Amino acid sequence: MSLDKQNKLWGGRFTESTDAFVQAFTASVDFDQRLAPYDIQGSVAHAKMLTKVGILTEQECQQIEEGLADILSCIQAGEFEWSVALEDVHMNIEAALTERIGMAGKKLHTGRSRNDQVATDIRLFLRDQLGMIQSELKRLQQGLVSLAEQHTDTIMPGFTHLQVAQPVTFGHHLMAWFEMLKRDAERFADCAKRVNVMPLGSAALAGTSYPIDRFMTAELLGFSRPSANSLDGVSDRDFAIEFCAASALLMTHLSRFSEEIVLWTSAQFNFVDLPDAFCTGSSIMPQKKNPDVPELVRGKTGRVNGHLVSLLTLMKSQPLAYNKDNQEDKEPLFDTVDTVLGSLRAFADMVPNIKPVKASMLKAAKQGFSTATDLADYLVGKGIAFRDAHEIVGLAVRLGTETGRDLSELSLDELQGFSQDIGDDVFQVLTLEGSVCARNHLGGTAPNQVRQAIMDAKTLLAE
Amino acid sequence: MSLDKQNKLWGGRFTESTDAFVQAFTASVDFDQRLAPYDIQGSVAHAKMLTKVGILTEQECQQIEEGLADILSCIQAGEFEWSVALEDVHMNIEAALTERIGMAGKKLHTGRSRNDQVATDIRLFLRDQLGMIQSELKRLQQGLVSLAEQHTDTIMPGFTHLQVAQPVTFGHHLMAWFEMLKRDAERFADCAKRVNVMPLGSAALAGTSYPIDRFMTAELLGFSRPSANSLDGVSDRDFAIEFCAASALLMTHLSRFSEEIVLWTSAQFNFVDLPDAFCTGSSIMPQKKNPDVPELVRGKTGRVNGHLVSLLTLMKSQPLAYNKDNQEDKEPLFDTVDTVLGSLRAFADMVPNIKPVKASMLKAAKQGFSTATDLADYLVGKGIAFRDAHEIVGLAVRLGTETGRDLSELSLDELQGFSQDIGDDVFQVLTLEGSVCARNHLGGTAPNQVRQAIMDAKTLLAE
Amino acid sequence: MSLDKQNKLWGGRFTESTDAFVQAFTASVDFDQRLAPYDIQGSVAHAKMLTKVGILTEQECQQIEEGLADILSCIQAGEFEWSVALEDVHMNIEAALTERIGMAGKKLHTGRSRNDQVATDIRLFLRDQLGMIQSELKRLQQGLVSLAEQHTDTIMPGFTHLQVAQPVTFGHHLMAWFEMLKRDAERFADCAKRVNVMPLGSAALAGTSYPIDRFMTAELLGFSRPSANSLDGVSDRDFAIEFCAASALLMTHLSRFSEEIVLWTSAQFNFVDLPDAFCTGSSIMPQKKNPDVPELVRGKTGRVNGHLVSLLTLMKSQPLAYNKDNQEDKEPLFDTVDTVLGSLRAFADMVPNIKPVKASMLKAAKQGFSTATDLADYLVGKGIAFRDAHEIVGLAVRLGTETGRDLSELSLDELQGFSQDIGDDVFQVLTLEGSVCARNHLGGTAPNQVRQAIMDAKTLLAE
Amino acid sequence: MSLDKQNKLWGGRFTESTDAFVQAFTASVDFDQRLAPYDIQGSVAHAKMLTKVGILTEQECQQIEEGLADILSCIQAGEFEWSVALEDVHMNIEAALTERIGMAGKKLHTGRSRNDQVATDIRLFLRDQLGMIQSELKRLQQGLVSLAEQHTDTIMPGFTHLQVAQPVTFGHHLMAWFEMLKRDAERFADCAKRVNVMPLGSAALAGTSYPIDRFMTAELLGFSRPSANSLDGVSDRDFAIEFCAASALLMTHLSRFSEEIVLWTSAQFNFVDLPDAFCTGSSIMPQKKNPDVPELVRGKTGRVNGHLVSLLTLMKSQPLAYNKDNQEDKEPLFDTVDTVLGSLRAFADMVPNIKPVKASMLKAAKQGFSTATDLADYLVGKGIAFRDAHEIVGLAVRLGTETGRDLSELSLDELQGFSQDIGDDVFQVLTLEGSVCARNHLGGTAPNQVRQAIMDAKTLLAE
Repeated sequence: MSLDKQNKLWGGRFTESTDAFVQAFTASVDFDQRLAPYDIQGSVAHAKMLTKVGILTEQECQQIEEGLADILSCIQAGEFEWSVALEDVHMNIEAALTERIGMAGKKLHTGRSRNDQVATDIRLFLRDQLGMIQSELKRLQQGLVSLAEQHTDTIMPGFTHLQVAQPVTFGHHLMAWFEMLKRDAERFADCAKRVNVMPLGSAALAGTSYPIDRFMTAELLGFSRPSANSLDGVSDRDFAIEFCAASALLMTHLSRFSEEIVLWTSAQFNFVDLPDAFCTGSSIMPQKKNPDVPELVRGKTGRVNGHLVSLLTLMKSQPLAYNKDNQEDKEPLFDTVDTVLGSLRAFADMVPNIKPVKASMLKAAKQGFSTATDLADYLVGKGIAFRDAHEIVGLAVRLGTETGRDLSELSLDELQGFSQDIGDDVFQVLTLEGSVCARNHLGGTAPNQVRQAIMDAKTLLAE
Repeated sequence: MSLDKQNKLWGGRFTESTDAFVQAFTASVDFDQRLAPYDIQGSVAHAKMLTKVGILTEQECQQIEEGLADILSCIQAGEFEWSVALEDVHMNIEAALTERIGMAGKKLHTGRSRNDQVATDIRLFLRDQLGMIQSELKRLQQGLVSLAEQHTDTIMPGFTHLQVAQPVTFGHHLMAWFEMLKRDAERFADCAKRVNVMPLGSAALAGTSYPIDRFMTAELLGFSRPSANSLDGVSDRDFAIEFCAASALLMTHLSRFSEEIVLWTSAQFNFVDLPDAFCTGSSIMPQKKNPDVPELVRGKTGRVNGHLVSLLTLMKSQPLAYNKDNQEDKEPLFDTVDTVLGSLRAFADMVPNIKPVKASMLKAAKQGFSTATDLADYLVGKGIAFRDAHEIVGLAVRLGTETGRDLSELSLDELQGFSQDIGDDVFQVLTLEGSVCARNHLGGTAPNQVRQAIMDAKTLLAE
Repeated sequence: MSLDKQNKLWGGRFTESTDAFVQAFTASVDFDQRLAPYDIQGSVAHAKMLTKVGILTEQECQQIEEGLADILSCIQAGEFEWSVALEDVHMNIEAALTERIGMAGKKLHTGRSRNDQVATDIRLFLRDQLGMIQSELKRLQQGLVSLAEQHTDTIMPGFTHLQVAQPVTFGHHLMAWFEMLKRDAERFADCAKRVNVMPLGSAALAGTSYPIDRFMTAELLGFSRPSANSLDGVSDRDFAIEFCAASALLMTHLSRFSEEIVLWTSAQFNFVDLPDAFCTGSSIMPQKKNPDVPELVRGKTGRVNGHLVSLLTLMKSQPLAYNKDNQEDKEPLFDTVDTVLGSLRAFADMVPNIKPVKASMLKAAKQGFSTATDLADYLVGKGIAFRDAHEIVGLAVRLGTETGRDLSELSLDELQGFSQDIGDDVFQVLTLEGSVCARNHLGGTAPNQVRQAIMDAKTLLAE
Repeated sequence: MSLDKQNKLWGGRFTESTDAFVQAFTASVDFDQRLAPYDIQGSVAHAKMLTKVGILTEQECQQIEEGLADILSCIQAGEFEWSVALEDVHMNIEAALTERIGMAGKKLHTGRSRNDQVATDIRLFLRDQLGMIQSELKRLQQGLVSLAEQHTDTIMPGFTHLQVAQPVTFGHHLMAWFEMLKRDAERFADCAKRVNVMPLGSAALAGTSYPIDRFMTAELLGFSRPSANSLDGVSDRDFAIEFCAASALLMTHLSRFSEEIVLWTSAQFNFVDLPDAFCTGSSIMPQKKNPDVPELVRGKTGRVNGHLVSLLTLMKSQPLAYNKDNQEDKEPLFDTVDTVLGSLRAFADMVPNIKPVKASMLKAAKQGFSTATDLADYLVGKGIAFRDAHEIVGLAVRLGTETGRDLSELSLDELQGFSQDIGDDVFQVLTLEGSVCARNHLGGTAPNQVRQAIMDAKTLLAE
């Protein structure tokens, strides 16, 4: 068969050759070649099933397996010649197979279509990548837990509205990040359940007239089950969108860590020191050490949000079953996978190397009247209603602000000027350590609560 | 206490009154009053817990419960006066409570903050709405299954690229929609697990120094557990984003149904008839009957995609813990809930009333060479490789196109001109019924497969 | 005419009454009543034109004008009874008119359709709002210029990567914000050109068989011209999307200002003081003064991005001409207008009241080796290539970091250890004032450049 | 200078080498090498300016120009070795230049920074691409006008809600598409004004202490003016976002054309025939001819919407001036440019080859009571108020529907049963030609109006 004929396997009906630009414009092989290993994995399983049900002979099956193995080596060695004229990864591999083994290669497409084939390939790909993502996610979580463990008693200011609010521990703050990632891992796991369903056998849209055994193929490929409806099977891209949505949330979390790390490495905060390996300098300002990694990850959030919108827009209003629009599903998905993996890896490498500057943190916690709530709570303990206590402390804070002193630096006399219920014991309450230790319940910032949270986290990660 | 003083419960520290425009601009009570029942539900549980741990007396607790019950009646009767000066639903209710019961009302805020209070309220709200959404979703699925059951043998053309591809049954097509909704229900259920976690007790950001019992409150409110980290507890809005993402997928599905219904009610397709109740007319064209409901639902997809982007943008780069930005979380969430519920209800009402125009469907299936694949498969059965069979059929189709005939209208002689392997038995293969029945495997369009899918669906819905 | 008949003006063709839920679900009057003044303005112009071309009598025209004036008063007084059964603002007003003036009211719809009517109304609305937006934008710009004028010599650190980079003036920084807004004003002006085109006369989609004079109507309504194609006239929503895109950019700018104000009001930066009127307190932490206005505006960025996505999704793939989907165009547009106007107003009120804390700014500028680039430039002046100078200064900075001193605190001996070309004159170069004044070219931070930029800005604003 | 030293031009301050993964993760050279020609163009202009102001000698300038010319040839021949260690296109080129010409190469970076350099490069790039986009846009418009010219009298049904509404001409429909593109061209032109401003000279963020002449550089590079504020100059990415927003609207328009072409090539509509060159076949269904090009373009809308969201998210809340996040600006911009150019080219190639199937269009226009509005208008001419006429015609349509006849097929007697005002002359009004010709005003579908619109379009395109 001539190359030209090969090129146009669907060409019998056509009387006019496809214009070169259109060919390149509509071809997907430039990006979908990435699916090659999964395409081959799927084809091998398909061939085995066709053999079992009597459509291929054992010999043909073996030829196919060997041919595909050879092609895979060739691709992995970078020696495969991808042809735009052959449109996509599927046609490229099938043509190469037929060139290698002849007739048996032409038989491989029996009982399937590119529509179910590509849907299967993407799911195999994504399942694989999800495994890697979960693994990097866990590594990052381990890094957080280890760092938190060293800092269950390291005091820093907790912020709301970026104003100093109450003292917390650095370990507690790190464990807040851990919690976010825990939900991300759960979401990816939930998504994986829906990824791991096999559309193969849906054929073009209606199933096939061959006596295929979809359970066998599903088992060979490790899918939990074949999909239940062929029209849905070829047109469903929910799993890709759900994955991008889960990724957008993960990136949102990383953007929040990033924002904090960027803030904390500023001269104004100086809460943490980042190793040089995660920073770069400036081409013009010799003194600069820029927190490039968190900044870049923060920026990459946009990328993933964009891909999510891209896929949602893509699928909006598409009638069943398969439409060419769907070719646009792959690049956003691939780039989301790469962005997530790269960002997780960078963070998992970086987190264990973050060095808190304890003295700065402590100094900052002492400013901003961070124990004002403790004074209010103290007054409540003396029988004053919370709302009235809040009012009293507000007046004390105003005096502090006007005279440039913290609450703990006001005299007992001055404090009693606001409420006669205040006694000598108030000064204990106004220490940072007292404040932190007092928040001693599940989820609170007290060191022993943080230690408990770390133990729970370790148990979870060990599962 | 004067109203002015009430208004500004956090005002001790301030020396200047808030400008009226800024007050209105930053207030949320116009929209968050919707949370009132959940706010009250949360406050009652909080009061009971405070009583158990000894912070409130039994009598105070009873006063609070009665006061709140009274306020709730008042709100439900539309007689509550919401004040913008009191900023939000929480302050409005607390001020009304204090006005009613005095000192005990001021004590209610002990051991909590608006930060954990609002996070709890939203979760109670969303949990409630998710229940209604699941219920409407199920009703729509039931409608699909019932309709499908009547049409397991109703033949229509299956499309890819909006070109006639292969015959399918109407029942099979409807069950494709069912499958999409099945995944939606799963996603909402997965989301609900993460909604049903209680942030109350996180207080402002660090927990509280009162000896609160978060397990008791969680149990009273039906939460599966208290949240594990207070900083995360007040700042986490993942559940709202995850809900919007699941909703965007659902709306994407509804947009696809809508697109098909709009197509199918066009004069050109004329596949289904929609009851007048789901259509409207034109102010200028007296003949028009427009499929308003599906068009509107299709349009509402944009709304939900937009809200998802809104929330993702909102949370991007926010440092811990709570920031005022988060006030913007509610309107997108509320509108998403309303849009999803309204759209589901409209579809659940409409679907059972869709009337397929069987004759049109059948006629359309006969056009477009929809059994061409069957001819190729027939040739494979005769020992020809699929790729060669595909080529042969392509030539036959070209003859059909040129002479304005379907494949089944070509003569045996003509067919044999393309391949000597074609015999008399080919004409059976070329019928629509033959084609449909041949796709007889899990997920295929064969009537008995569709019947099996319907049985499985009923089992699922009965759970 | 009975109310029921009124309700269903397009009802002749229908045999079944619309279900109540569907009626409410598809009605738009709850939100499009906001267009009433514009609808009436358009109707008056339409009536005058119909009169001129002989379709209405002078008397009928007068009746219509008076009737509509009465309805408008009624609406503005809040006494108009909007009916969901009448679907939208157009039908409500027309029905009320017919009730008031009889036959002439029924004639008003001659030669137009709701499709071109609503498109005209929205454009009138948006043109109006754009005027207000431009006016608030200018007020904000004026505030920036006034504040900048007071601070052309106030030194603060300039940041890249949130690391201190080089000293700049506060006036220069404010003028950067001014530049962003200048582009926003240009974009809104460009958008306004495309808003100000009149679709009226496009009728349902194809124009009308009445001898209408679209130029007359356009002139009466102040439109620059009638639209050129009726199909496009009724389906074009570009102007709404373009407006939302311009608004998203404006909000992005405001989010950047907000981020900086939030940073600057933190205890760590303490660069500016915000008046109490733009802040709120905490329900639990009595010491808090939170920069609510900038935080909220930053959050509102998401809202506008979301609306932009909503409208783009809405219009994707809609076939010509009008589809019901388009009803979803109004709420995102209205909310974008309100968000932009509210945010601009809040900022225009706030900016003149920002008080820089000069001492903090100056102190911060002295840290972080902000004159390192000046040292490199000094070395270039001595004949060293820039890249080599950069290397030398890097080493000096390292010494400074290790010994806790700024470059200006190193001794001449120490500096000469890095390069013999360094002389006594270097210390002038290392002052903040020297650094700032040296950047003396168009766009640079030198005070006299900033003064020139302020003069140019004033000229522009005076236009 | 050793390669290692070259690699880390900002390395004097650093004590630890950058980790290989982080280096690759943060490097941009893989994608920003595309900016090389613009980077070189900018560097040549910068060198000339530095020479004029006395910073470089004539000889150094000549060396730089020759060195850069050599590098450009090398890049264009694909022989340039890009190094990830050198981070980006700027450093790669500068290092290559220094290797070629020594000391003069090191001097080139005097008075600029990568921050202003990259901002300038992107603007040069985008200005260039905008020219190509405008040119392809015009070509597409010309194709539409030519096709419209042949079909000013070709009747087809006009649709609203995808229901037949009124007859229009195919030429009129095509000119609606033309109008959309006209606005796109205007928006790109407006955007180009804001692209064509030069940030070079802003240096890192504050300007430079060298006596640079920004007007000279701007003139050499064809910019309309230097940017007015250095902090804004390095951080402004408005132009990229504005370009993506304009592109999203263009793609939305193309998605609407695409949707219609896909509909029209379906067997059900069969309104147009698309040349084979713009279609592809199926790997399994030999009869398929799929409208791949419009489907793919429709899908690509998502891509551009996504990039717009990506950039908006990226810039949200970024403090001044430059942050590493901004590195993420390039890929979405590049891909948007490529998508827009490819889609325009494909459409410009395709449109002139669209063949309307006139008979199908005509037949469809005869269905659906498309002249019902004409009957109502006829009744208005007889003195009946429009709303009453609408009611009468509704009843006539109901009779038509029930008896399977068009309005023109009802007898005079039957028509008079609805209104005695109907006379013999009604049948002229009920023809498609009569209906179309009657819409004879600016923007209407009457053939002579369409001809006038075409003449106006040609005049515009000839400008």
